[in-house]
Amino acid sequence: MSSPAEPRIIFTPSGRRGRVPRGTTVLEAARMVGADLASLCGGRGICGRCQMTPVFGTFAKHGISVGPEALSEWSETESAYRRRRGLEPDRRLGCMAKVCGDLLVDVPPESQTHRQVVRKDVDVGKLRLDPVTTLHYVITPPSTLEEAAGDAQRLLRALAEQWGLTEVGVRAEMLGTLQEALREGRGKVTAAVRDGREVVAVWPGFSEVVLGVAVDVGSTTIAGHLADLTTGEILASEGLMNPQVRLGEDLMSRVSYAALNEDGGARLTSLVREAVNELCAGLVESAGAAPESVLEMVVVGNPIMHHLFLGLDVRPLGEAPFTLATDGPVEVSASRVGVDLADAARVYLLPCIAGHVGADAAGMILAERPYESEEITLLCDIGTNAEIVLGNSERLLAASSPTGPALEGAQISSGQRAAPGAIERVRIDPDTLEPRIRVIGIDPWSDEPGFSALEAETQVTGICGSGIIEALSELAAAGVITADGLIDGRAAERSRRVVETGRTFSYILWDQGSEVHVTQNDVRAVQLAKAALLAGARLLMDHLGTDHVDRIRLAGAFGSHLSASHSMALGLIPEISQEGASSAGNAAGTGALMTLLSGECRREIEQITERVEKIETAIEPRFQEHFVEAMSFPGARRSRDGEGRVNQRRSRRGTSRRTRERRR
Amino acid sequence: MSSPAEPRIIFTPSGRRGRVPRGTTVLEAARMVGADLASLCGGRGICGRCQMTPVFGTFAKHGISVGPEALSEWSETESAYRRRRGLEPDRRLGCMAKVCGDLLVDVPPESQTHRQVVRKDVDVGKLRLDPVTTLHYVITPPSTLEEAAGDAQRLLRALAEQWGLTEVGVRAEMLGTLQEALREGRGKVTAAVRDGREVVAVWPGFSEVVLGVAVDVGSTTIAGHLADLTTGEILASEGLMNPQVRLGEDLMSRVSYAALNEDGGARLTSLVREAVNELCAGLVESAGAAPESVLEMVVVGNPIMHHLFLGLDVRPLGEAPFTLATDGPVEVSASRVGVDLADAARVYLLPCIAGHVGADAAGMILAERPYESEEITLLCDIGTNAEIVLGNSERLLAASSPTGPALEGAQISSGQRAAPGAIERVRIDPDTLEPRIRVIGIDPWSDEPGFSALEAETQVTGICGSGIIEALSELAAAGVITADGLIDGRAAERSRRVVETGRTFSYILWDQGSEVHVTQNDVRAVQLAKAALLAGARLLMDHLGTDHVDRIRLAGAFGSHLSASHSMALGLIPEISQEGASSAGNAAGTGALMTLLSGECRREIEQITERVEKIETAIEPRFQEHFVEAMSFPGARRSRDGEGRVNQRRSRRGTSRRTRERRR
Repeated sequence: MSSPAEPRIIFTPSGRRGRVPRGTTVLEAARMVGADLASLCGGRGICGRCQMTPVFGTFAKHGISVGPEALSEWSETESAYRRRRGLEPDRRLGCMAKVCGDLLVDVPPESQTHRQVVRKDVDVGKLRLDPVTTLHYVITPPSTLEEAAGDAQRLLRALAEQWGLTEVGVRAEMLGTLQEALREGRGKVTAAVRDGREVVAVWPGFSEVVLGVAVDVGSTTIAGHLADLTTGEILASEGLMNPQVRLGEDLMSRVSYAALNEDGGARLTSLVREAVNELCAGLVESAGAAPESVLEMVVVGNPIMHHLFLGLDVRPLGEAPFTLATDGPVEVSASRVGVDLADAARVYLLPCIAGHVGADAAGMILAERPYESEEITLLCDIGTNAEIVLGNSERLLAASSPTGPALEGAQISSGQRAAPGAIERVRIDPDTLEPRIRVIGIDPWSDEPGFSALEAETQVTGICGSGIIEALSELAAAGVITADGLIDGRAAERSRRVVETGRTFSYILWDQGSEVHVTQNDVRAVQLAKAALLAGARLLMDHLGTDHVDRIRLAGAFGSHLSASHSMALGLIPEISQEGASSAGNAAGTGALMTLLSGECRREIEQITERVEKIETAIEPRFQEHFVEAMSFPGARRSRDGEGRVNQRRSRRGTSRRTRERRR
Repeated sequence: MSSPAEPRIIFTPSGRRGRVPRGTTVLEAARMVGADLASLCGGRGICGRCQMTPVFGTFAKHGISVGPEALSEWSETESAYRRRRGLEPDRRLGCMAKVCGDLLVDVPPESQTHRQVVRKDVDVGKLRLDPVTTLHYVITPPSTLEEAAGDAQRLLRALAEQWGLTEVGVRAEMLGTLQEALREGRGKVTAAVRDGREVVAVWPGFSEVVLGVAVDVGSTTIAGHLADLTTGEILASEGLMNPQVRLGEDLMSRVSYAALNEDGGARLTSLVREAVNELCAGLVESAGAAPESVLEMVVVGNPIMHHLFLGLDVRPLGEAPFTLATDGPVEVSASRVGVDLADAARVYLLPCIAGHVGADAAGMILAERPYESEEITLLCDIGTNAEIVLGNSERLLAASSPTGPALEGAQISSGQRAAPGAIERVRIDPDTLEPRIRVIGIDPWSDEPGFSALEAETQVTGICGSGIIEALSELAAAGVITADGLIDGRAAERSRRVVETGRTFSYILWDQGSEVHVTQNDVRAVQLAKAALLAGARLLMDHLGTDHVDRIRLAGAFGSHLSASHSMALGLIPEISQEGASSAGNAAGTGALMTLLSGECRREIEQITERVEKIETAIEPRFQEHFVEAMSFPGARRSRDGEGRVNQRRSRRGTSRRTRERRR
């Protein structure tokens, strides 16, 4: 059978096709027709990233017939690769197999440069792997007396000739490493190229490891992922406490610390940097990797963490007009911010949106992509300040609302962080007013077998944010708390758990060993917090001109653990159908990971944040109105007074539908 | 007299002209018609850089008549400026004086942005001042709750609106300084912008000081200038010894030190960096300036100094093929190379040409600009290696030749560096063979009144490079040294100064107290050195296809002190008319200064060095031929043997013309 001089080649799943000269390798053919076939070693049978599967048979649709003779014979290099690293029986190396006749080639996902990253543990959705830093193995010809050229110039020529990278330069800081790598590798080196513009690392010989770290610097915890930038694989995930906590529990107290103490800001900066450095070291160690392999880092955080990490003055963020040093994306060398990674490692910080709406909110927006749908989405990241984003493909609005520390368990009589011993779930029988609780670290509910034994070990130590939300919501539903937030003394007649304490009443949630009460002050603190959050959301709804939202996503450590139904019953968030509200997990961290794995995501969020309209709650008179209104507990069982007024207001908003808690 | 709505305005000396709306300031008018009128403060009557002189009278050539009413009245701001900083009677501030009628404006040199820098002490020729870093005073509007924007974004907007700089970014490292400057200056700040692309420094309020340092890192001495980048003025010039000398006198011994000692290279690097840092500190102190004002630095040096300063491995430069880490221009932050200047200060190193022809040669080429003329110019920078450049507007060739240390006074029996006590000039009476000498640090010649008294103080300690060249040239002319470089024993009959020492003869140049002899070994050492230099020059002439050069410029510490006529008589350089050969001073340092003051010069030399053809003496068989031939002393007086052969050879070259030393 004679074969044409220029056989046809078709790549799936991309569908790219064309005619290529006989004898062209499949890798070259992929480049010629614009199909996506990976390679780190530049077609030398080393990296195995160009694996593909020839598909044999007659394909009427394409008008071709593919037989075994369509590819060159199995090569020595392929045998060597199979012995060394294994190769599935139907696979060939694209850089070795040559086109000899019409051909259909299937490119498996892991051989695609811009492959989709889909993972369960961190929901990055369908992400095209497109890291800012890429690896390129090159053979650099030696300099000779006859044709002398500098190391840098020879490397750049090799990158241009062997990889088509014509716009690259070499940082001066890299030259020493380059000298050494060329000598050790005898001209064979792997170069890491950033943005297609700059050689940022060079290793002798073939190397396929380039890693990145994505870190979410929260005011309480700092969490990060270590990822392989050539595969998108997450190699390790860890978290640690933000050591700044000892200088101030909440954000504003840290700003005060910076303002009132000489070098206070510097001290906060070195604390957070040390913690981030420790986190990175831990991630690298967990994965058994080398810090020098980590070339990329992404950081998200609220504006105060963002500024402290960068060593910037946070005092302007403590007072109106809350001026950021920059609201754009920031890039800085890792060493400059005290993180020990590769010499040339760069840290990318996502843009901040406003003085109270930080890079973490940008990360949340990217992770949730409300701008891709016509549905109106409300995103809330709840902490001392709630960062609230509302909108859809047409408009996006953002605000922050001063929720205060109550929702994180602070300023609550028995409040504590979400840690073992904290009550995190509460159900109260509306008739007997007897509670059932669930405690972090103890699997069964308090009325289930085994609880007592486990509680004896762990012991109930307090109540965390999600617990207090549920407790209040349940107490309101049971008629113990009135619509305007009073613990109704009349409930004391129904249960020994409602007790008078001075001029107000408390509810005894737990009294076996330790005591956890819900006091009138606790109710007031939560009332202020939830009113701030809801008022913020309503203000954005006003600005968007809508009286409903289609979807609510609760992000952050607190938000993710929140029961959506209790939150709505309490009036923490606008009421929508129960399915519409869900947890977004650590959306900020997910957004960080996305920008670590994809340069396209960086450009996307940079453009999106420029479009976000900032609403400043502090200067909006309507915020105060909404706030006052949002003080009420919509889920409160009818009680004689207060009821009418509240319902009247709420019906004006057209959101009088109640969502009843489905009992477990 | 009615004046038109759009009067004509003509600027001299540029000749730019046009019509502008009445009421336009002269500064605005200059921008509108493209005339060159400086301003640092953005037209706020602060900097005074836009001073100009209105010229009154009738100008038939231009068809205009200019009266005092052509400009707006003297303003308060101008009075304030005159009180504060002085203003010549005929001058006005271009930013305050408004065009009210047809106008002729003379822009004095110091008000031109791209002014020509002409100075005597350092010959930079006519240089257009065009520094890479420029100053821009801006008024940055505050951020407000209604219209919030980051500090960086507001500064960039101000730079775009007030200076037309639309492509600028702010380095992350600058953000903290920016916060502080905006606060202190209440929004009024001066920004230093590099390359029109990057804000590299910010000061509160109006600032007009931005400085730069140009440093020539020689193997023996390190010399530098501190210049004001807004005026081109040289504020200080200093030099110090290269402390590496203690680890190796000449370059190759330093390469050996780096090769043979662990951390040898690192030690050499820190020595040179410390010295450069010390030099910079000294320059800044001499000028009473602040190190933070220094934002630019330029460094030239031979390839080994270049690499050691950058902390690169010099071992490849010690053996064929003499591979540079880079032959392109290098930019690196000053802090990275251990120099304490402004935080954002950048160091620019001129490109190297080849493994033995460094950034100093590039500086020399820029300073001498042989590529601008059709004349064939030979540039020589003579040290342990001579860097030789030959060519004209059509072609430029470069080579280095291994002259060895003899010409620097090393390997000479009484040799020493050019320092007080060194014999630097020698005349020998051809009949009596009695010498006259001149000594560094002693003004009169040895036969002039006052010499003895001064010599008693200073004392003759040895002979430096230029002294040995003159001594040998004079001895050859007097017939003491033969054409093939032998001290002729027969001369002992004519003078007690020629004495037998073992199997050879010496000439006693000085014997009063100390002794300075010229030995046969000294002659051989110089003979090898000068043969290398001349052979290199002749090799380049071969490659250029020429048997003559029009102009010879001798650069470097040694070259500048050399007597051109003696050098030619000795056969150190090709013979040309005496006027054709001259000293170029420290041409490398001048080139460095030029690139400090002008970005255009950087681009120019980067382009030129790419064009330079590198000739590698080591692999050219003709180099050996030229070398053997160049061993002879063309200026030797006829002696019975050797004469015929030498003349025969020299006449083959067509350069038999002799230049006789004009006696002082």
